[in-house]
Amino acid sequence: MTAPKDPVPGPWRTAISDADETSMRYRGYDVMRLMEQASFSDVVFLLHQGRKPTEAERRLLDAILIGVADHGPASPSATAARVVASGNRGAPEAAVAAGVLAIGDEHAGAGHACMLLIDEGLRRAREGPLTLEAAAKITVAESRAAKVRVPGFGHRVHTSIDPRTAVLFGLAKDHGLAKDGIAFMRALETAVRDAIKPLPINIDGALAAVLYDLGFPPLFGKFVFIIGRVAGLTAQVSEEYTRERPMRIRMPVTYDGEPPRE
Amino acid sequence: MTAPKDPVPGPWRTAISDADETSMRYRGYDVMRLMEQASFSDVVFLLHQGRKPTEAERRLLDAILIGVADHGPASPSATAARVVASGNRGAPEAAVAAGVLAIGDEHAGAGHACMLLIDEGLRRAREGPLTLEAAAKITVAESRAAKVRVPGFGHRVHTSIDPRTAVLFGLAKDHGLAKDGIAFMRALETAVRDAIKPLPINIDGALAAVLYDLGFPPLFGKFVFIIGRVAGLTAQVSEEYTRERPMRIRMPVTYDGEPPRE
Amino acid sequence: MTAPKDPVPGPWRTAISDADETSMRYRGYDVMRLMEQASFSDVVFLLHQGRKPTEAERRLLDAILIGVADHGPASPSATAARVVASGNRGAPEAAVAAGVLAIGDEHAGAGHACMLLIDEGLRRAREGPLTLEAAAKITVAESRAAKVRVPGFGHRVHTSIDPRTAVLFGLAKDHGLAKDGIAFMRALETAVRDAIKPLPINIDGALAAVLYDLGFPPLFGKFVFIIGRVAGLTAQVSEEYTRERPMRIRMPVTYDGEPPRE
Amino acid sequence: MTAPKDPVPGPWRTAISDADETSMRYRGYDVMRLMEQASFSDVVFLLHQGRKPTEAERRLLDAILIGVADHGPASPSATAARVVASGNRGAPEAAVAAGVLAIGDEHAGAGHACMLLIDEGLRRAREGPLTLEAAAKITVAESRAAKVRVPGFGHRVHTSIDPRTAVLFGLAKDHGLAKDGIAFMRALETAVRDAIKPLPINIDGALAAVLYDLGFPPLFGKFVFIIGRVAGLTAQVSEEYTRERPMRIRMPVTYDGEPPRE
Repeated sequence: MTAPKDPVPGPWRTAISDADETSMRYRGYDVMRLMEQASFSDVVFLLHQGRKPTEAERRLLDAILIGVADHGPASPSATAARVVASGNRGAPEAAVAAGVLAIGDEHAGAGHACMLLIDEGLRRAREGPLTLEAAAKITVAESRAAKVRVPGFGHRVHTSIDPRTAVLFGLAKDHGLAKDGIAFMRALETAVRDAIKPLPINIDGALAAVLYDLGFPPLFGKFVFIIGRVAGLTAQVSEEYTRERPMRIRMPVTYDGEPPRE
Repeated sequence: MTAPKDPVPGPWRTAISDADETSMRYRGYDVMRLMEQASFSDVVFLLHQGRKPTEAERRLLDAILIGVADHGPASPSATAARVVASGNRGAPEAAVAAGVLAIGDEHAGAGHACMLLIDEGLRRAREGPLTLEAAAKITVAESRAAKVRVPGFGHRVHTSIDPRTAVLFGLAKDHGLAKDGIAFMRALETAVRDAIKPLPINIDGALAAVLYDLGFPPLFGKFVFIIGRVAGLTAQVSEEYTRERPMRIRMPVTYDGEPPRE
Repeated sequence: MTAPKDPVPGPWRTAISDADETSMRYRGYDVMRLMEQASFSDVVFLLHQGRKPTEAERRLLDAILIGVADHGPASPSATAARVVASGNRGAPEAAVAAGVLAIGDEHAGAGHACMLLIDEGLRRAREGPLTLEAAAKITVAESRAAKVRVPGFGHRVHTSIDPRTAVLFGLAKDHGLAKDGIAFMRALETAVRDAIKPLPINIDGALAAVLYDLGFPPLFGKFVFIIGRVAGLTAQVSEEYTRERPMRIRMPVTYDGEPPRE
Repeated sequence: MTAPKDPVPGPWRTAISDADETSMRYRGYDVMRLMEQASFSDVVFLLHQGRKPTEAERRLLDAILIGVADHGPASPSATAARVVASGNRGAPEAAVAAGVLAIGDEHAGAGHACMLLIDEGLRRAREGPLTLEAAAKITVAESRAAKVRVPGFGHRVHTSIDPRTAVLFGLAKDHGLAKDGIAFMRALETAVRDAIKPLPINIDGALAAVLYDLGFPPLFGKFVFIIGRVAGLTAQVSEEYTRERPMRIRMPVTYDGEPPRE
């Protein structure tokens, strides 16, 4: 037996929650009072921002969580969850986790990427000083030079317009919460149209703009999608379990590799 | 190149959601209207039950989602998420998924297990016919014979009482939603006290009883925990990213195996 | 700031490996010497059994790892890995992990289940005392009474015979390693034929019998599949990345739920 | 019921493996013959390169897989696997997958990153034309300008020298397989020493150089670590299951956030 080579680590620190035998608090607020009075989206906001949202802010966050909650079994996250549910009936958490793992750069990664873009574009506008329009043009030009798509535009199903975008921007305006994030996204839309072609702001672009205006950091552009979509993933897994037999999923495959050899 | 050996499969079916280029519906309801008017917990209920909740039902579901949202970094799901976040800064979805994977039988598995127990106990009471008390005694006796703990009782932090239980049961009673599930859980509490020792109904046991009375299937006892806890996991991962340096987690280890050998 | 509520834990203990600044050992053996002289399957054996395999034992373990390494993109684990790779180009570890998550009870779970069955059947035979044939009959009768399939028999592709089974059993016999595990599996095959219908021992049943005879615990029946299959999953993910465009996977879906409603 | 909106997709194509009722082939080779004659590392090579390795090539790949197979419970991947195993006793695949998810950019990501660096550095040297030394200096200067560490150097345990590096480079030289990859890595070592400080080439840097010289693509720098490490992760999970009680892992935590508030 050898002595441990590393010192025993000190305690981990956290500012998120605290609990002892008889009490529990999130960000200093008593959990039992929150259970009685708050909505789940209030707590999502509280855990991530350290303060409770106003009614208007909660409305916007609810709208985003609802807007991304499900998009059918053909969405990569739902397909992954169903395939794992098909082969693994004993561990529902494995199916949900596989769905979360599909939420990467290509599938729903645009929310995070778009918040980084807004953050950078607005900093440039302020430091320039430039108009939002001028800053947006630079952003689009950079994306083109780097040969990457501008995140937040276009959708493989909603090709001409994403109906969720108008709702989010409308709610933000009605509640007085449309600020620089939305303004920059609109400027980006114009710059994309002029430099490339008309493309609709998709749900990822819309939620990025709204979350920016609500004060969330860029990473939350990915997390809000995960939080909302998990509700759809659990429903998809439930449906797979109750309506389908195990191992029913079997993709047809064509082999086009080396012929048989010794 | 060989021909595919399996027929091309037919389309997958779903009753959860539907979308085309300009519309989106969850369980038949227009998503854009839900974004404007509903709360996220309404949609969680809708996706899983196929109908919107009443105000009272929504209050209960909100209370449960809030009650399980976080329990600090020492909860196994949060610890797993933080360890993965420590080694993998590039894929936040991987850290959240690792947290979900820790939600198994030992950690938060009791909600699901307890709903199965309630379901079976109440069926037995009805078929017997037996009083709930008699059915609960049989349930406890069976668990003891099988040498397994009765799920839904005791907590490693909240050892004498789980403060969330009283809130949930109180809300259910106040809103007229306390039914057989809660009654059976109370009968189980008495049977546990008589046969083993006094043990408090924990959050898992409480949410199992309430969800049963709300009409959810047993599997939702696990899913509600995942949906709620993901909000805490994303906050834990955010905190790890912003407050801690990569690779800071390093457990002290003692080797007690074979000595060096040839 | 509150004081930590739990004592700082002592070091974790392990008997698997040990390392300091200039040395590394697996189960007491110098890693550098193993790198120069051993095969990877030797180390798989060593890590799990605490001793190096004989040449015959290594041959059997290699054969099993090779036999389960890949079964094409239609295998649930490979399908899950490819779907995640399709939506998440930035985190290859997420795609491989999703594939591992599909290795549950229905997909490749039979190896583990079958080792438990062999373990229990042989214990019953010894304690009875019963012939292997009599013990096997009881095992099959119990499975039928519980309305579960006997694990280790039948395959959705290799319906009449699994060609890998003959190779494994042949190698075990030729190397003098066919013992009670294989004998019990053969007895089970006869009992299944008599009580149900003729069904071939599949790769899961064959590897379970061989691993039992090699001295591995039942859980290794699942782990050997994971270790071997990960090599196929990484190849599947590589192929998805290099031959296919992101987001190419899109299942056709039919909605059969509630019609549009207010 | 609505008609599916997408055409039924054609079959997926693969060049990795092929199987029908009575046969199975990897890259055209009969699986049953491989089971009888090949080692698992031969098949790892075959699946990823499409050809069998020479004896020398197999020796190198075995050495790498062995060298990364385990590094104790304090390695982030092993810690994550053990934490999940502690909370989830029912799904061993979840624990292994959580371990895989920790293999990101910070933990073991250097193999992949280093292969990309070697690939780019050698291309620059050839196109320049430049000496390897000159190309290596540019690489280090670029990393410094971008304020990122040069991957493949230094280790938190093996601070002065990684004993696995000498073995890998020695084997490569002895077998006549040390080519431009190793030469560039040595040039990088000199450039790092001159521009920053003397830092040892770690296992990630060493395996990157060797795998490059064996003809593997950069992504395999990550995959080889996953394939090898899974053997250690399954051993770590087995040990957690057999030696430790469920839920034993509990990090000490200090709360330093908002005080209790209304």
